[in-house]
Amino acid sequence: MTGTEGRLARLRTAMAQAEVPALLVSNGDSRRYLSGYTARDLPPRESAGYLLITEERQFLLTDPRTEAQAAAEAPAFELRVYRAGAPMAEVLHDAVAASGVRSIGLDGSTISHALWESIAAALDDVAELRAVPDLVDRLRMVKDADELAALRASIALNDAAFTHLARTVRPGMTELELAWEMESFARTHGAEGLSFDPITVAGPNTAIPHAMPSERRVQADELVLFDIGVRLGGYCSDMTRTIALGPIAEPLHTIWQIVLDAQLAAEAQARPGMTGAEIDTVARGVIEAAGYGEQFIHGTGHGIGLEIHEPPWITPTRGADILEPGMVFSIEPGVYLPGVGGVRIEDLVLLTEGGAEVLCASPKKLSLTEVLNDLDR
Amino acid sequence: MTGTEGRLARLRTAMAQAEVPALLVSNGDSRRYLSGYTARDLPPRESAGYLLITEERQFLLTDPRTEAQAAAEAPAFELRVYRAGAPMAEVLHDAVAASGVRSIGLDGSTISHALWESIAAALDDVAELRAVPDLVDRLRMVKDADELAALRASIALNDAAFTHLARTVRPGMTELELAWEMESFARTHGAEGLSFDPITVAGPNTAIPHAMPSERRVQADELVLFDIGVRLGGYCSDMTRTIALGPIAEPLHTIWQIVLDAQLAAEAQARPGMTGAEIDTVARGVIEAAGYGEQFIHGTGHGIGLEIHEPPWITPTRGADILEPGMVFSIEPGVYLPGVGGVRIEDLVLLTEGGAEVLCASPKKLSLTEVLNDLDR
Repeated sequence: MTGTEGRLARLRTAMAQAEVPALLVSNGDSRRYLSGYTARDLPPRESAGYLLITEERQFLLTDPRTEAQAAAEAPAFELRVYRAGAPMAEVLHDAVAASGVRSIGLDGSTISHALWESIAAALDDVAELRAVPDLVDRLRMVKDADELAALRASIALNDAAFTHLARTVRPGMTELELAWEMESFARTHGAEGLSFDPITVAGPNTAIPHAMPSERRVQADELVLFDIGVRLGGYCSDMTRTIALGPIAEPLHTIWQIVLDAQLAAEAQARPGMTGAEIDTVARGVIEAAGYGEQFIHGTGHGIGLEIHEPPWITPTRGADILEPGMVFSIEPGVYLPGVGGVRIEDLVLLTEGGAEVLCASPKKLSLTEVLNDLDR
Repeated sequence: MTGTEGRLARLRTAMAQAEVPALLVSNGDSRRYLSGYTARDLPPRESAGYLLITEERQFLLTDPRTEAQAAAEAPAFELRVYRAGAPMAEVLHDAVAASGVRSIGLDGSTISHALWESIAAALDDVAELRAVPDLVDRLRMVKDADELAALRASIALNDAAFTHLARTVRPGMTELELAWEMESFARTHGAEGLSFDPITVAGPNTAIPHAMPSERRVQADELVLFDIGVRLGGYCSDMTRTIALGPIAEPLHTIWQIVLDAQLAAEAQARPGMTGAEIDTVARGVIEAAGYGEQFIHGTGHGIGLEIHEPPWITPTRGADILEPGMVFSIEPGVYLPGVGGVRIEDLVLLTEGGAEVLCASPKKLSLTEVLNDLDR
């Protein structure tokens, strides 16, 4: 992977500004972002390794199972291997002692409490372990050129998967059959995996934001929701479309239009300098004004990149970050009527100086016929 | 899910013995095991909820996105929903206050350090947060009848996937094509997913224990390793076979036989009352005696159930638990020669009073021809 050198330089600038002389990195995607080492963790019990980054040196700690991969993928890092008789905390202790730093920063949200305690104890005689905000998250929020290219490719493949679903779906198919159509298309067209289990649901199941596809058969007179994403080159895509295969009853038609209005308003008004909470307020305001505020039961969006959900958060509660050009996030308002149906419409956008560039190309139409017409144009 | 009532009763007995009046459960699979609620976490940043279990009451805390699912799947639990304006720690505080307990136990390895700190602070005026060993892990190690049935079904499907791979593999196929053969077979034959990304690799890639399949084409004169597992009914399977499509050169033939001897010795000698470390010693002893001890670079096995890797650990470093009837774990020694090739052979076994019952049915033969002969019998 290109670009890791520049990322390390930017991280060291941020570390100097935050007065963090050394940083321990435990988040697997941050580890990949900084080093190029792609091994994945097995949460909650197993990590594929840790980075220790000081002003002058950088270490990658892992175990023998991934030693060869780490050496091949992260040649710029000094490799330290823990094994039976030399546990991780001890190997870390020796790397810290060798680098001479006396204080190690670590984001407490990326490591278990038990591991924090054991690392702090192991380092006791050489350095203090100190909770710091996630400096790598701050970097990862603004995508560089390599990342934007990877995101665009992932999104294009996801659009193709939606096109496949639109051309395949018909009354009588089960939700699980649609999920498999999505996954098999993605995997046979280059995706290394999905960025999350596909939400391909219909009827009352569309009223559950994180619904799981079932053996239920899709009907022509109900809403069908596709919330899908692929992983390509390590980067995630994410898009939701809600459609109907035939005529549907009120209030489903009405709430579909309200959600689209809210979604388009947020996309039109997003600007650098706003906070995520302010963009949430734009979408939420449209839905509240239409009388469905209580039925919009989640935030408006989330950042995306190596992780499917990452900062910045476009929500009332976690949306304090000021948004900058180069950030990529979802805009996905929804309205959910339990037992009846729900609508969510989601794009990914790239924030630029001029506003939000919509990265997803799939049509936003309620009627499948209109969707297919747009796709055939 | 049946059985959650009995599991809660057993947990409360364990809590009384450990003098833990209330337990907070944050591991997603333990949450499912105790409640039946199947929503999955999105590590490292997002949890689908928490259980609070006291002597008399049981609460399930989640957010509005999964409220309906939690109510449907975990009717025995009192549902508490956190949302904007009422964050998780505050809702937990109120449930703790309502139940009147003054001390909450929590396993520090299942929650982030930052979340631990924020929960401890929020509970400050009503209860103390105390680190306790994972009492649910202790229960989950010994499988009940429902779990054994689910594991056997998952393993049978995984055996079928291996049969499919054995009948499909031929020189010239890429490692990634083999991975997709595995996944598409599993998913079109009932699996809800894989328990891990398939390791379908050949030649020098077999020398990397956690290798990722590549565009490399399989050759007839090299080792081919299949480490595969499916998820069915929530339960994971896991099996490794190493084969050759044609004649292979030494020392590959020799190390294959050494690994099989080690694997069979551990299976033959496993008994209740031994520790995991002692079983590891049996397998490791065979490989060390043959002169390849330094090339066996991982532990002999791991427990399996709702998680692909869970206690008990069959390793030198974490294998202190005394093994009991009803435990299910892998026995998977390996020998790895960097740049040349590696061999790993893995079964899942159920420990009974009489010893280890081997649950995987696939042949353990080096030659693909012999494997196919056994499968056709």
